[in-house]
Amino acid sequence: MIQVTIIGSGNVAQHLISAFSKSTVVEIAQVYSRHKTILHPVIPIDKIVNDFSLLRKVDLYIIAVTDDAIEQVAHQLPFENELIVHTSGSVAMEALGTKNRIGVFYPLQTFTKDKAVNFKDIPMCLESGDEKDYPILEKIAQSISDHVFNINSEQRKAIHVAAVFVNNFVNNLYQIGNEICLENNVPFDILKPLITETASKIMTLDPVAAQTGPAKRNDQKTIDKHLDFLQNKLHKDLYKQLTQSIQQSNGKKL
Amino acid sequence: MIQVTIIGSGNVAQHLISAFSKSTVVEIAQVYSRHKTILHPVIPIDKIVNDFSLLRKVDLYIIAVTDDAIEQVAHQLPFENELIVHTSGSVAMEALGTKNRIGVFYPLQTFTKDKAVNFKDIPMCLESGDEKDYPILEKIAQSISDHVFNINSEQRKAIHVAAVFVNNFVNNLYQIGNEICLENNVPFDILKPLITETASKIMTLDPVAAQTGPAKRNDQKTIDKHLDFLQNKLHKDLYKQLTQSIQQSNGKKL
Repeated sequence: MIQVTIIGSGNVAQHLISAFSKSTVVEIAQVYSRHKTILHPVIPIDKIVNDFSLLRKVDLYIIAVTDDAIEQVAHQLPFENELIVHTSGSVAMEALGTKNRIGVFYPLQTFTKDKAVNFKDIPMCLESGDEKDYPILEKIAQSISDHVFNINSEQRKAIHVAAVFVNNFVNNLYQIGNEICLENNVPFDILKPLITETASKIMTLDPVAAQTGPAKRNDQKTIDKHLDFLQNKLHKDLYKQLTQSIQQSNGKKL
Repeated sequence: MIQVTIIGSGNVAQHLISAFSKSTVVEIAQVYSRHKTILHPVIPIDKIVNDFSLLRKVDLYIIAVTDDAIEQVAHQLPFENELIVHTSGSVAMEALGTKNRIGVFYPLQTFTKDKAVNFKDIPMCLESGDEKDYPILEKIAQSISDHVFNINSEQRKAIHVAAVFVNNFVNNLYQIGNEICLENNVPFDILKPLITETASKIMTLDPVAAQTGPAKRNDQKTIDKHLDFLQNKLHKDLYKQLTQSIQQSNGKKL
């Protein structure tokens, strides 16, 4: 079996450990963690190390640590010419240095502690510094995901920015919806079927075709009523800008 | 069976016709449509009228027309003291006039032509001018939906504004994600599992707890990189404002 070592014990590391533990192609050789106790229960204690000098030689080292720590961790590794990858959407592959063969192993998903995800559905964005290393990365990724993509650093940068819009910013709009409900004595639950349907529509429709609402219809009367209703300045400004953005996207299609 | 007449032939009217056609409690007596040909196939031709004077007496008339046309249609109805409702989230109940008993029958969902929805899951927001009329509205709504709410006009106004945020504006963020992908030669499909998971998380987590990303982490380095990446001024402005909005929501919780 292919031997993989995970460096890190955060959300991404834990979800990778969980995914690889079901694989019949890849075996987790070791896990590096500063805090042994918080690790995934499938890893026996003798496979957990907290000293880089105890890392054994394996086929791939996956550095799943926070963005800021990637460069430092890569620098501290006490070996050369091995294959190491990081898992970040926003850090350049080159942050891994020149001592080892480098690559990126970026799962495009939002990971929440204690919420299981089906790794098979997660797009894996792969990149390798040397194309000779790509096939092994691909084989390892395919052992846990059905959606593996060869993505260069420029494309990955775009994906990460786009992901902020469709994930982080969308969640903030849910939060604003929640606040408006709370302030007006309406249960947020009433919006949940609409949230589900809005996400579901986009699976089969182009976002421009899926667009509905007062901005799309240029229904200025309703837009004015809504702006009049909103008291929070930030919400009012966002309403104006997103309305303008819809009208612009819509105009583009015509 | 309870007799209901639908006035209108747009998306909402068509979805209501489809939902009532499966009900064992409610029967569609007639449908008023200016354009007979585009109606739902379950309605026999002799039940379709295009003249208000041909409307028979029924238990409820549902006016499912565009917001701007509601007042005019209600005014044209050639009868008095019957129960009439509109289906709009943003029009006051009083737009229906004083000639008839009035109410609101607002399905909180985004309807797309030719895309089926499961009406059972759609929250129905009901209001009646006279509380004696509420039970029949409730019975009719419960015949097609499992989620029926008594919602007054102020609450409905709030729901409609909140719905614009979690539906229309969220869809626009999908569209921006799509544009960023297209411009950088990345398939939009790569974002779809993330979109699904983001919506799914909110079913069980509070939006503040579900928030992730650079804005939440106050990761200014990544925020600056993303702003530098974005060329479209509107996208850049939205990025800044939504980042600020996340940081404000986050601050509230701390």
